[in-house]
Amino acid sequence: MTLEQAETTKSPVIILVEPQLGENIGTAARAMANFALTELRLVAPRDGWPNKKAISAAAGANSIIEAARLFDTVEEAVRDLHMVCAATARTRDMVKSILSFADAAQVMSERLDAGQQGGVLFGRERAGLTNDEIAAADNIIMAPVNPAFASLNLAQAVLLFGYEWLKTGESVRLGRETQFDGPGIPGLNMRASRPATKDELYGFFEHLEQELDAAGFLRPVEKRPIMVRSIRNMFHRIGATEQEVRTLRGIVASLTRVHKPRRDVP
Amino acid sequence: MTLEQAETTKSPVIILVEPQLGENIGTAARAMANFALTELRLVAPRDGWPNKKAISAAAGANSIIEAARLFDTVEEAVRDLHMVCAATARTRDMVKSILSFADAAQVMSERLDAGQQGGVLFGRERAGLTNDEIAAADNIIMAPVNPAFASLNLAQAVLLFGYEWLKTGESVRLGRETQFDGPGIPGLNMRASRPATKDELYGFFEHLEQELDAAGFLRPVEKRPIMVRSIRNMFHRIGATEQEVRTLRGIVASLTRVHKPRRDVP
Repeated sequence: MTLEQAETTKSPVIILVEPQLGENIGTAARAMANFALTELRLVAPRDGWPNKKAISAAAGANSIIEAARLFDTVEEAVRDLHMVCAATARTRDMVKSILSFADAAQVMSERLDAGQQGGVLFGRERAGLTNDEIAAADNIIMAPVNPAFASLNLAQAVLLFGYEWLKTGESVRLGRETQFDGPGIPGLNMRASRPATKDELYGFFEHLEQELDAAGFLRPVEKRPIMVRSIRNMFHRIGATEQEVRTLRGIVASLTRVHKPRRDVP
Repeated sequence: MTLEQAETTKSPVIILVEPQLGENIGTAARAMANFALTELRLVAPRDGWPNKKAISAAAGANSIIEAARLFDTVEEAVRDLHMVCAATARTRDMVKSILSFADAAQVMSERLDAGQQGGVLFGRERAGLTNDEIAAADNIIMAPVNPAFASLNLAQAVLLFGYEWLKTGESVRLGRETQFDGPGIPGLNMRASRPATKDELYGFFEHLEQELDAAGFLRPVEKRPIMVRSIRNMFHRIGATEQEVRTLRGIVASLTRVHKPRRDVP
């Protein structure tokens, strides 16, 4: 398999959020190439894009750099994805399921087989991901590290995910198709529907938050961001299907519709 | 656990054979520290020993560099070991069993438990290990890489082995309670709140369904049971905390309150 051929094969999307140094973007691209990850997305890289240092550090993985897509926000970068994991070095004050890199790679592999696309968010070199960015993910993923020496750089974190990703691919070649035929996403049988895209989910969020604003629920205004994050975090955890997102929107529309006089309410 | 304490815990020996650049010795030491590998041996490093560049590149992992032992030959470096693996990027024309990094880490872990010591040989940056050096090992170990882009640097190769090593026994190697105190264990991070009781969740369901009945959402009546089941199924999947159930109830109350006078609220 050549690198070019690898690029026609589907693999999880690597999303670097506000990377600071071009070198790190380049070495992350090299780590991707080592393990046949092909799609890179960049959210607001600090030094702009394209970046000469990224290109020189990527030496050999240039096609990944050249094909990288640029976004202004995490939300825009994940809209077409069905599953988003946030790589973090430490747990946060947030209710969110935690997967190992290996389990995340395995789940993404199975979802890809089912025609769904996943991605992993990697944060800024120093500051990592914000709580809002993590809340927008389905899961947190963490690698086991020595707590006395926990610092992995960006390329190393991408390397470990890529390594786990390629390991799952070996099992695919060893006969995955007999193992999971049908609606075989472990843990979540989607039945007739498909997982909602993040775009559909954000449509629901906008609808819900508009109504909650109208109802005065998201107050005081200085607490609005944290309230919105908590609510979105809950609904992200549903892992909703497209049908379910429509149901959620139906519920909000129904609850806010002007009611007829309700003589039956006690 | 401190890095110093980790050094009293047994772990496989990392043996760098004729490493050329001091920087690579330093970054390999850092990768070791990331995954609680503590014992470094150097076979005839090209630029002599000690090496200032190794020390500066190791920043933070200096104790590993300082304790590194120097040998003239691979044979001398492995004399006290019970099992030696040779990390290579490509198979050789040699009858030798090939293990994955994961399997090698697992076997070394079991041997350590049995009082035996294992080590891994990593070759020169450009040329790798000679056939003689490989012949002196019990096994070859290889990581799966993209054949079109197979170049891993020395520190990356050490990193992957260390990662697999730590995975074989995080709880043993680190004392699970110190690394993952509470919420870091893969699963759902509940943080400050506690999981909602089913009683609390059903209280929310009753509240929601009462309002949806009033709004005429759960119709026709013969479909009501399946609609209720689908909606409850979604909210069950949140795995909500007690605090989150209260938020959900607040949302329903808020969305319905704005549209009707609530003279009936006690």
